[in-house]
Amino acid sequence: MPKNTQQAGKPISPSSEEVLARLEQLAKSIYDQIQSGKPPYLDIPVRTLANTIWDKKRKLLVLGPKTAKREFFDIGESKRFMQTILMLSLIVRARRENDYPTIRDLYYTGKHTIYYVNEYGKKVSEETWDDQRESNAVIQDIEVATGLLREHMGIMHDAKGRIVGNMIIRSKGTEIDLSRMGSGAWGIPSNVDQLEITKVEADYVLVVEKGAIFERLNEEEFWKKNKCILVTGKGQPDRSTRRMVRRLWEEFDLPVYILTDADSYGYYIYSVYRSGSISLSYESERLATPEARFLGVSTSDIERYKIPKNYIIKATERDIKRAKELMNYPWFKESKRWMEELQLFIERGEKIEIEALSGHGFKFLSNVYIPEKIANKEWII
Amino acid sequence: MPKNTQQAGKPISPSSEEVLARLEQLAKSIYDQIQSGKPPYLDIPVRTLANTIWDKKRKLLVLGPKTAKREFFDIGESKRFMQTILMLSLIVRARRENDYPTIRDLYYTGKHTIYYVNEYGKKVSEETWDDQRESNAVIQDIEVATGLLREHMGIMHDAKGRIVGNMIIRSKGTEIDLSRMGSGAWGIPSNVDQLEITKVEADYVLVVEKGAIFERLNEEEFWKKNKCILVTGKGQPDRSTRRMVRRLWEEFDLPVYILTDADSYGYYIYSVYRSGSISLSYESERLATPEARFLGVSTSDIERYKIPKNYIIKATERDIKRAKELMNYPWFKESKRWMEELQLFIERGEKIEIEALSGHGFKFLSNVYIPEKIANKEWII
Repeated sequence: MPKNTQQAGKPISPSSEEVLARLEQLAKSIYDQIQSGKPPYLDIPVRTLANTIWDKKRKLLVLGPKTAKREFFDIGESKRFMQTILMLSLIVRARRENDYPTIRDLYYTGKHTIYYVNEYGKKVSEETWDDQRESNAVIQDIEVATGLLREHMGIMHDAKGRIVGNMIIRSKGTEIDLSRMGSGAWGIPSNVDQLEITKVEADYVLVVEKGAIFERLNEEEFWKKNKCILVTGKGQPDRSTRRMVRRLWEEFDLPVYILTDADSYGYYIYSVYRSGSISLSYESERLATPEARFLGVSTSDIERYKIPKNYIIKATERDIKRAKELMNYPWFKESKRWMEELQLFIERGEKIEIEALSGHGFKFLSNVYIPEKIANKEWII
Repeated sequence: MPKNTQQAGKPISPSSEEVLARLEQLAKSIYDQIQSGKPPYLDIPVRTLANTIWDKKRKLLVLGPKTAKREFFDIGESKRFMQTILMLSLIVRARRENDYPTIRDLYYTGKHTIYYVNEYGKKVSEETWDDQRESNAVIQDIEVATGLLREHMGIMHDAKGRIVGNMIIRSKGTEIDLSRMGSGAWGIPSNVDQLEITKVEADYVLVVEKGAIFERLNEEEFWKKNKCILVTGKGQPDRSTRRMVRRLWEEFDLPVYILTDADSYGYYIYSVYRSGSISLSYESERLATPEARFLGVSTSDIERYKIPKNYIIKATERDIKRAKELMNYPWFKESKRWMEELQLFIERGEKIEIEALSGHGFKFLSNVYIPEKIANKEWII
């Protein structure tokens, strides 16, 4: 298991001093180039699909070795060069002043109009960036150039994950007991690496796709009866939910089970937890849980659990197209079981939701389906 | 102030015995009708727009006095009658067995095919319901017929609100200190009425539309420095977030400030917190906060706070259309200030986001904008 050797549970965010130092180091390299009269440039690892590698052994998408020189005096690159320096200066300022901007804040703060006289003597203007895709892209460049996650740099996002179970977290000097959240749950914050996980007493982690199912299992205290940590990312998970699941697997050796609807969207959510997304492959090493197991609901459950015909939903053309795309992902391709399952989905053209199991009684999911699948090792990997 | 006279903070969910009794009472009325040989019927308050009344004094949308007889032997109503009884039986079963189904679970559990021979001697079939709109509608009918919120009946939804601040909640026998959530927050559960709010030490409630802004303000401990309770409903708020805000206003007399983007979508979110939505008018009495104040960001802030031109976004036709619709809502119509603001939005055709304030520095929102607006009473109502 390619696990981290750090001490389990300790905060793994670099200290604020180190974050600032690494950012300033990047800026200083430019400063030094200018001082010594060289044309300034940045070396940025390339984040394209062509430089994304499927690491078979570690079961992870990782960034390849290719880097690109981004030169100030190259007319095709100077704008992106300046955007990167602009963003770097904003982030450094935020860290120095202990601010926690969102990615949208950074977009606005850096957005301004540059007026200049062009080669024909005409007054023209240019925006520093036109939309947030441009500002987000340079944040990602700074992430790969410094090896820092944007969360380490104090950049916030709309964190939507929830977690509950027998574990204690230390954050901002406070101990938080996630078994004492009542009917509520702990909302996972943006920067999971800053947390110290001081205690975990559980046999496994159960990640449920759907928020409403999480609420139901939490209200029944499923996690208490089944000694597990219950997590939801509410659909497509954000970075912090994925990071939290990863830490529980990596540092506490907990098996991770994913529960989604039986359709290509649900299967893709499993895939994001397990292997990461192609567009953010450079983060997979820290966000993915390469041993995550798909518990269900699966297309083959339709027969196995005798799902009544009128609970079955016809898959759309888009669902089928998506499933065919999934069959080309290396982590699905390498799994005979998954190829069968996806093939079955395409052949039947049918999908079911987690809630379809309620046809066997409201408690079927928690009393029968989940415990049985785990006990009988009927997950799919 | 049309406030509740109940003791502040106490759980206001009816007890599980009472919930069951009220549901069984409804069923019993049908049973009694049948026993005495009468054609069975249900009396259900009508939830149409025509029966929705703007209560000027209480500043609330409420259901009018109109009820409709839903008769089993009326061919146009018998299906809906049967759907209502079917749903009622599912909810009673869930309460008796201490289950917490989601609205989707109830849809699936009740979904089945009825086979029968029609008047021409032909075998035909009919679904109990075809989609969730039908099953949701009868849940709403049962809510208005029994005076119970669906949350009281133990029905779960995907609760997405977060809250943090100087307050203590008791839930499932546990005391939860919402000032000790670290970088995280407490995820508001489905049934807020079940909670006991044992302590609140705050001067006001700040509700922010955007989850990422909530994360930022929480990370800076805005709520600690400004003695407030910080809440987000993450966009269009769900029922439990609205219920929580309402309880803090109603039972603890806290002023409530709403912070959204300056566009018709943001203005509508304010309107939902304050007065409820037309489609769920029967719930407004319990979910709305009729004295909620709109703090910003407003169209008039563009001039007032000298928002740079390139931070301004052109409003779409849809935005303008929506704003015109808002101008017809009674609670906007009765406010001179709001009519001016909406008119200005339509004239300028411009919108800005909360994050546009970051142009004045990352701390401008928390150090200047919010405290100033509150101190100078510059909210809009």
